[in-house]
Amino acid sequence: MADDRINTEHNQEDVAFLEKELRHISGIIKQRGRQILNAYTITPPQFVALQWLLELGDMTIGDLSTKMYLAFSTTTDLIDRMERSELVQRVRDEQDRRVVRIHLLAEGERIIEEVIDKRQQYLKDILGQFNEKEVANLSILLEKLHQEMKKN
Amino acid sequence: MADDRINTEHNQEDVAFLEKELRHISGIIKQRGRQILNAYTITPPQFVALQWLLELGDMTIGDLSTKMYLAFSTTTDLIDRMERSELVQRVRDEQDRRVVRIHLLAEGERIIEEVIDKRQQYLKDILGQFNEKEVANLSILLEKLHQEMKKN
Repeated sequence: MADDRINTEHNQEDVAFLEKELRHISGIIKQRGRQILNAYTITPPQFVALQWLLELGDMTIGDLSTKMYLAFSTTTDLIDRMERSELVQRVRDEQDRRVVRIHLLAEGERIIEEVIDKRQQYLKDILGQFNEKEVANLSILLEKLHQEMKKN
Repeated sequence: MADDRINTEHNQEDVAFLEKELRHISGIIKQRGRQILNAYTITPPQFVALQWLLELGDMTIGDLSTKMYLAFSTTTDLIDRMERSELVQRVRDEQDRRVVRIHLLAEGERIIEEVIDKRQQYLKDILGQFNEKEVANLSILLEKLHQEMKKN
């Protein structure tokens, strides 16, 4: 961590409270995500892979492994299955034929967009009791939390 | 939902942003939680079970199944394994001998407290770049989010 960064030492009680809220919120999001996936043919790890391909575009298996915190071989198996289901396709780089990237196919895109849409609908219902200012503040604070987590 | 509850309709872009931030934060928390567990003998579902027993005290397998969103039989298997590892123990209710509850043993308590402590330490580092007001606001907003999620 750079020396010029302020480092506020928060009290243990506040940190403990936040850790617990984040742990429980993550648990509920995980469960709700699984419920939503029940209506689809994809598994939770397939959802995570499709989500990255939608967000970042074509990716090598190596990059996808890193993003998914999975072993290369596990990601390869995952992609093999998704390729057989015609959700994704391996494509060779035009400039460098040794490089293979995973490309989202129309059916994969349709499914991931529909699933994310359902997750957004769920969150929209939850946020019905938040006013505009609260939603704006929550966005700013969660974006900052996410950025700090990515640095760590 | 009761009629007297205000229901703010937030715009789709704000909801989409928040859904994405929450999805990525949950993903990072999950991964960090797994990393922390690597140093211990317990599995992620065992962590979740121990966490509920620490938070709520002795529970029946039925109540634990509900909290963990698992089938009764899956929870029974989980508890059987944790009982063999001497992390928990089945205890009969003194008033109603037909009722059996799961009780956290000293070793289970030691492990779950240590793991949660490591999660708090991680979050404390992350929050080093947040000022006191931001931490206070984040606590209020996440508590509200959690409460709304529990109602849903």
